Amino acid sequence: MNMITILGLSAAFCTTVSFLPQAIKTIQTKDTSGISLSMYSIFALGTLLWLLYGILSDNFPVMIANGITFLFAVVILAYKIRFK
Amino acid sequence: MNMITILGLSAAFCTTVSFLPQAIKTIQTKDTSGISLSMYSIFALGTLLWLLYGILSDNFPVMIANGITFLFAVVILAYKIRFK
Repeated sequence: MNMITILGLSAAFCTTVSFLPQAIKTIQTKDTSGISLSMYSIFALGTLLWLLYGILSDNFPVMIANGITFLFAVVILAYKIRFK
Repeated sequence: MNMITILGLSAAFCTTVSFLPQAIKTIQTKDTSGISLSMYSIFALGTLLWLLYGILSDNFPVMIANGITFLFAVVILAYKIRFK
């Protein structure tokens, strides 16, 4: 595994894992007043497109990162819609 | 420009643009109670690493998307720290 792949996996780890504390906070507090519905709607779509891009371009870090991030984004979006 | 590049640019557009309504909402309302400090700390670092990955792997969609997203994330993070 070369340096660029390690960098990509580190990046993927951070941007993916970052949504976990937000999802936990949102699930626990149901405080979604400061969260933007537009952001999570467009972001969920975007991560889905990144996932397809990763699959089609055979780019492992893009693929795995966005597949997981998409799931976190959908959870946060669902709470925003339910508890806005 | 082939189909995969167009898909990557569409993904980049969505995940980048999505943070704009969140940044505007946060700036206007200063309501950061539901926003996770951990998320934006780790996410800002992650987008910075993605930017480096995009530059080193000569991947234009990854590069441009994460450069802009990093800036939005830093603005939201700054408001979270200032108005928590």
